[in-house]
Amino acid sequence: MSKILVKKYGGTSVGSIERIESLADRLVRDIARGEKPIVVASAMSGETNKLIALAEKIDPDYRGPAYDMLIASGEQVSISLLAIALEKRGVKTQPLLAYQLGILTDSTHAKARIKDINGSKLIELVNKNIVPIVAGFQGVDEDDNITTLGRGGSDTTAVALAAAIKADECEIFTDVPAVFTADPRLVPKAREVSKFSYDEMMEMAALGSKVLHIRCVEIGAKYGVKIHLRSTFEEREGTWILPEGEVMEQAVVSSVTHDANTAVFKLFPVPPGPGFLAELFKTLAAKGVIVDIITQSESDEPSTKGQQRLAFSVTKEDVPLTRQVLKDLAKNVDVNLIENMAKISVVGVGMRNHPGVAARFFATLATQNVPIHIVTTSEIKISAVISQADLQKAATSLHTEFSLDKID
Amino acid sequence: MSKILVKKYGGTSVGSIERIESLADRLVRDIARGEKPIVVASAMSGETNKLIALAEKIDPDYRGPAYDMLIASGEQVSISLLAIALEKRGVKTQPLLAYQLGILTDSTHAKARIKDINGSKLIELVNKNIVPIVAGFQGVDEDDNITTLGRGGSDTTAVALAAAIKADECEIFTDVPAVFTADPRLVPKAREVSKFSYDEMMEMAALGSKVLHIRCVEIGAKYGVKIHLRSTFEEREGTWILPEGEVMEQAVVSSVTHDANTAVFKLFPVPPGPGFLAELFKTLAAKGVIVDIITQSESDEPSTKGQQRLAFSVTKEDVPLTRQVLKDLAKNVDVNLIENMAKISVVGVGMRNHPGVAARFFATLATQNVPIHIVTTSEIKISAVISQADLQKAATSLHTEFSLDKID
Repeated sequence: MSKILVKKYGGTSVGSIERIESLADRLVRDIARGEKPIVVASAMSGETNKLIALAEKIDPDYRGPAYDMLIASGEQVSISLLAIALEKRGVKTQPLLAYQLGILTDSTHAKARIKDINGSKLIELVNKNIVPIVAGFQGVDEDDNITTLGRGGSDTTAVALAAAIKADECEIFTDVPAVFTADPRLVPKAREVSKFSYDEMMEMAALGSKVLHIRCVEIGAKYGVKIHLRSTFEEREGTWILPEGEVMEQAVVSSVTHDANTAVFKLFPVPPGPGFLAELFKTLAAKGVIVDIITQSESDEPSTKGQQRLAFSVTKEDVPLTRQVLKDLAKNVDVNLIENMAKISVVGVGMRNHPGVAARFFATLATQNVPIHIVTTSEIKISAVISQADLQKAATSLHTEFSLDKID
Repeated sequence: MSKILVKKYGGTSVGSIERIESLADRLVRDIARGEKPIVVASAMSGETNKLIALAEKIDPDYRGPAYDMLIASGEQVSISLLAIALEKRGVKTQPLLAYQLGILTDSTHAKARIKDINGSKLIELVNKNIVPIVAGFQGVDEDDNITTLGRGGSDTTAVALAAAIKADECEIFTDVPAVFTADPRLVPKAREVSKFSYDEMMEMAALGSKVLHIRCVEIGAKYGVKIHLRSTFEEREGTWILPEGEVMEQAVVSSVTHDANTAVFKLFPVPPGPGFLAELFKTLAAKGVIVDIITQSESDEPSTKGQQRLAFSVTKEDVPLTRQVLKDLAKNVDVNLIENMAKISVVGVGMRNHPGVAARFFATLATQNVPIHIVTTSEIKISAVISQADLQKAATSLHTEFSLDKID
């Protein structure tokens, strides 16, 4: 019985005609081994950013149907070229855009969520020995407009397709061989991890790890799709994302993650009453802005005593939209934007049974003289917003503190 | 009552962000004057060729769903950008791809023909004061695959949309201000023509005039859509393509047209019996190759007496496909390809009533010592295949002979 595998290839895997040709060769070998691949591809590396730059040259703030139609064209190019390369090798293919597969999403342009996928067409093609080559990152909404799924959207497409056809595994090919305990560029002693639980990976994704988008892991967890992150350029195994029971090695902290692209908005004074905050965060959510950490506190200064201060963090990409919303809603409020912030976090399912982690976290940063601006915790993670300038020393010292350093 | 106008803009009109912004400004002025535009756009100039080059780097001969999906992405980019530019100016828009409009075609990839368009969505948008911005050049077939309409396909899209919504006029904006009696780069004394009949324009298109594609004019003629060819960069009127009764100035010959990209295939000996030719031209037609002129003659040489020679011409673009078909079908036949040929033609509805035109045509070329390889005529045109090297002197002398030269 042949194994149906969803295989997702990122931008570097299809980054040039040469890369596309060698990917086609590798797929031919996979097929010869009896695999029945369903391929999902991203845009050629750099293309999506090039398209975004064109749009932003006209209007940096516009997000709507035309924006998604524009940036979805990158995947259309890469899957067509990959299909041509496979056809040349005698492999029958069917390149597929979202409208052809019925990848139905909501209408939050640039950050749409998948609502439904009809997997029957894929199964039909695979049964006819035709290789489906699916454009990642895109969907269509109920009005037939193209939508896009945001950064990491092609991974989400792949795992959602695997869920729709009840595939056991989804392979995500990338330019790194595995997931590390921390970003090796930031923490040279970071080492590879062979298994993470869905929960850990979701926290890491939520915290800004670039490895997998949170929605992708969410869908994997919900439908039990085992995700295998591995290298495009090496044949060896990488990192598996699995149900918690299947992850053996449970360190207290399994990784140190960071997000160097954080920005903090500070508002003062916040209009009194519950209406303003509700309206603000509802509007931001409607625009697709993900507000990360929120803190509110009362002013202590005599002249403004009793007035409320609000701080919240968003990713750098969401700064223009957020600024626009604040311009409309926070009319008599002093709005202060602090850029060049970073969020540093430690994650591990083992934290559930080890209460001392927070104390060690704060003690480590204090020893390194790293001021903490905002803090947030969950059952399996602790995060702090710090200055970008402090990021490296914070990450390195936490990595050592929680015994993650590789042994030379 | 506002006037609904289909307005088609070519690659140079959307060739850069600056051009797109100034096109958006012009459309805002049109709307302020009370026009209700339906916009059709080509890909940014050069983009389609860039995409074709990518495909051909992998496989120069492949034509199929992936090819059309690839090259259709150019229009997707340009209409999205134009929509963003109009939205920035406060104009509500709806960018539309073929699948959204139901532009149904056959499945002849790279040269599909439109079978049906549902115009109701366009009318609905226009009635809501939303400007539809339609990707030219593309359609979808019954299997939901993207198709493309071949060179000049965006003009065809525009006229077909105008026909579908029963618009009186279709404006085709281009980088030349009007249609000339001949290509001014080839014949410096060429002058502008204010009106052509559909028949003349169809002959000119069939003969390789780059101005409008024949299918576009065919659709215009069939549905009575008046086509107005005009400049993107000047506001004045250009050339109208109209029913014959509305064209006043009926010169015997109204234009000298040429196609510098002709290639001739010569086959010898042709297998006897009617089967071979039927099979050959059926197969070429099925692949979408348009065979232009066909001649057949019996050999006079003693050694091969009674055997048949076949010659036919195709455009340069169709040479690879034709060669492939001949490789499969003409196994024991000597196939000779002559490239660098050109076709020169004179066209005019007035020829219907003036029988002497052919004689003047041949006499003119004879005087100039231009050898003629193949000839073909219709009720309103005479064409000859000559060497590319003779093209300029042939065109210039015919233009003078038929009193088309501009008076200084």
